[in-house]
Amino acid sequence: MATLINKQFKLAARPVGLPKRSDWTYEENPVASPGAGELLVQVKYISLDPAMRGWMNAGKSYIEAVEIGAVMRAGTLGEVIASNHPDFAVGDFVSGAQGVQTYAISDGKGLFKVDPKLAPLPKYLNALGMPGMTGYFGLLDVGQPKAGETVLVSAASGAVGQVVGQIARIKGCRVIGIAGGAEKCAYAVQELGYDACIDYKKGPLFDGLAEHCPKGVDVFFDNVGGDILDAVLTRIRMKARIVICGAISQYNATEAIQGPKNYLSLLVNRARMEGIVVFDWAPRYGEAVTAIAQWMAAGKLKSKEDIVEGIETFPETLLKLFSGENFGKLILKV
Amino acid sequence: MATLINKQFKLAARPVGLPKRSDWTYEENPVASPGAGELLVQVKYISLDPAMRGWMNAGKSYIEAVEIGAVMRAGTLGEVIASNHPDFAVGDFVSGAQGVQTYAISDGKGLFKVDPKLAPLPKYLNALGMPGMTGYFGLLDVGQPKAGETVLVSAASGAVGQVVGQIARIKGCRVIGIAGGAEKCAYAVQELGYDACIDYKKGPLFDGLAEHCPKGVDVFFDNVGGDILDAVLTRIRMKARIVICGAISQYNATEAIQGPKNYLSLLVNRARMEGIVVFDWAPRYGEAVTAIAQWMAAGKLKSKEDIVEGIETFPETLLKLFSGENFGKLILKV
Repeated sequence: MATLINKQFKLAARPVGLPKRSDWTYEENPVASPGAGELLVQVKYISLDPAMRGWMNAGKSYIEAVEIGAVMRAGTLGEVIASNHPDFAVGDFVSGAQGVQTYAISDGKGLFKVDPKLAPLPKYLNALGMPGMTGYFGLLDVGQPKAGETVLVSAASGAVGQVVGQIARIKGCRVIGIAGGAEKCAYAVQELGYDACIDYKKGPLFDGLAEHCPKGVDVFFDNVGGDILDAVLTRIRMKARIVICGAISQYNATEAIQGPKNYLSLLVNRARMEGIVVFDWAPRYGEAVTAIAQWMAAGKLKSKEDIVEGIETFPETLLKLFSGENFGKLILKV
Repeated sequence: MATLINKQFKLAARPVGLPKRSDWTYEENPVASPGAGELLVQVKYISLDPAMRGWMNAGKSYIEAVEIGAVMRAGTLGEVIASNHPDFAVGDFVSGAQGVQTYAISDGKGLFKVDPKLAPLPKYLNALGMPGMTGYFGLLDVGQPKAGETVLVSAASGAVGQVVGQIARIKGCRVIGIAGGAEKCAYAVQELGYDACIDYKKGPLFDGLAEHCPKGVDVFFDNVGGDILDAVLTRIRMKARIVICGAISQYNATEAIQGPKNYLSLLVNRARMEGIVVFDWAPRYGEAVTAIAQWMAAGKLKSKEDIVEGIETFPETLLKLFSGENFGKLILKV
């Protein structure tokens, strides 16, 4: 064990705006041996998520902030390479939140075994992981779409968006996406089965909404916020449901967050806007995993990953989320 | 009939910002005789409401805009002085939306008979009218307060706010108000039974919220919007409900509406923000009138009016709503 080296990224400073290279410390430290009741995991894949930006800020949000000097929090998939824990054996694959590092010791809490024969490992960080759970419960429990309704999804080809769009389609809704660029829009329509996808980089979003949501929007699943949320508020239908899953356009704001100027459309349309955090559904994750795995097996639901190799690329790769460069769930392969 | 003169205020121009005197035309016209199936009402009281400002703007909102040149829309209470309608007799008192004028002919649609022996007429424009219905259904159906929860009400002593605060108190909630000025705050606590009332003109709202809502806010019934909504969003509890009833701070905005910058608090707290329009509960108005009348009879619910005499004062009296000068439901006595 003594020869193993743990490559780690620790938070060096709270970023102002986009995280800079100097906001991180890269360290190589020897890997300790697991103690009694502990296990050692070799991290294979690290999940890169928009929510990570929020965890870097001071103050408690829905989860504690990452401390300065601590290994950056991240979802992970790894293999057990040593174990003094009765529930985990060498060779098991586990998902968890073991952070941006190549090895991690754990007491087993928050680790879940996954079966690499049922699905490729990266799927467990995507449709069979947090993004899938978020899309499933956020859409079905909070958005409550009915067959025939119009469901609009921002970041339509992103990790959460692709799950939302496909489940809405499976449930018989008319599904419209919003994404940046022709390639993502084509993928949303051709591969994910969206009825249409609006390229917000191509022209005014208002025009696309008028064309593709002529009767308005019943459910808006928003991952982006900012101008997109503002525009959509002008097109909601009576009793519309807006699911606030994220606001990636605002996470690096150095001035005040842009509030939705058209929020009084909620009043005019007797509509509601509701925020979600996936952890609330933890007791029901099994239900979502089962449903999504069945849809995947039946060829009804696809899950696309954007896998970048090399933990050393972490600071730069993370930024792909905020530039919109990633295409599908962004994952770092160790 | 031919000698009766109808004093009318018509919309002359769509206001920019606060409605000016020149946005109105005052006319005196002879009153016509009611035709077959029609009745003639002498208007006694005219309801002045924040919503009227929205009706003056171009474009359909939750109701059609008032046309330029048309009598200004307003809720009214009047007495039938001539009738060719089988359901209405001379001497009946009726509530309706007959506009800012002293006489109105009607085919009876939208008119409801009220009993002046059960309650003084102005109450039918207040707790027993639209403000009462709005407060009752907005709080109970959308806010869904549970006994012991903290309910916060902006414009706490206003027409809707006073009903909301008192019903929340009746339902066993801890009730905190926000109002402008010591006199309104004292009234809210001493007469309406609020547990506390924060004077937003006196000091930072954040301090008042920290003092009086130390555990946060479960239900926020908002009539004001703007900075008040922004501040409250920082203090909501998990699963909070924000009822968007109005945004009087924004109705005369000449630039873009101020969106709630802290809306991502909805996400962090899994909270929802929902808009209401009272008309949706029209089939259930009877339920609310019965409940409110019983609470009034039992001395549990008060309804304060701010009555100004003289239809000629309409343009200036209306502005009291936006300066916060009115104290209780603003009504014009003809």
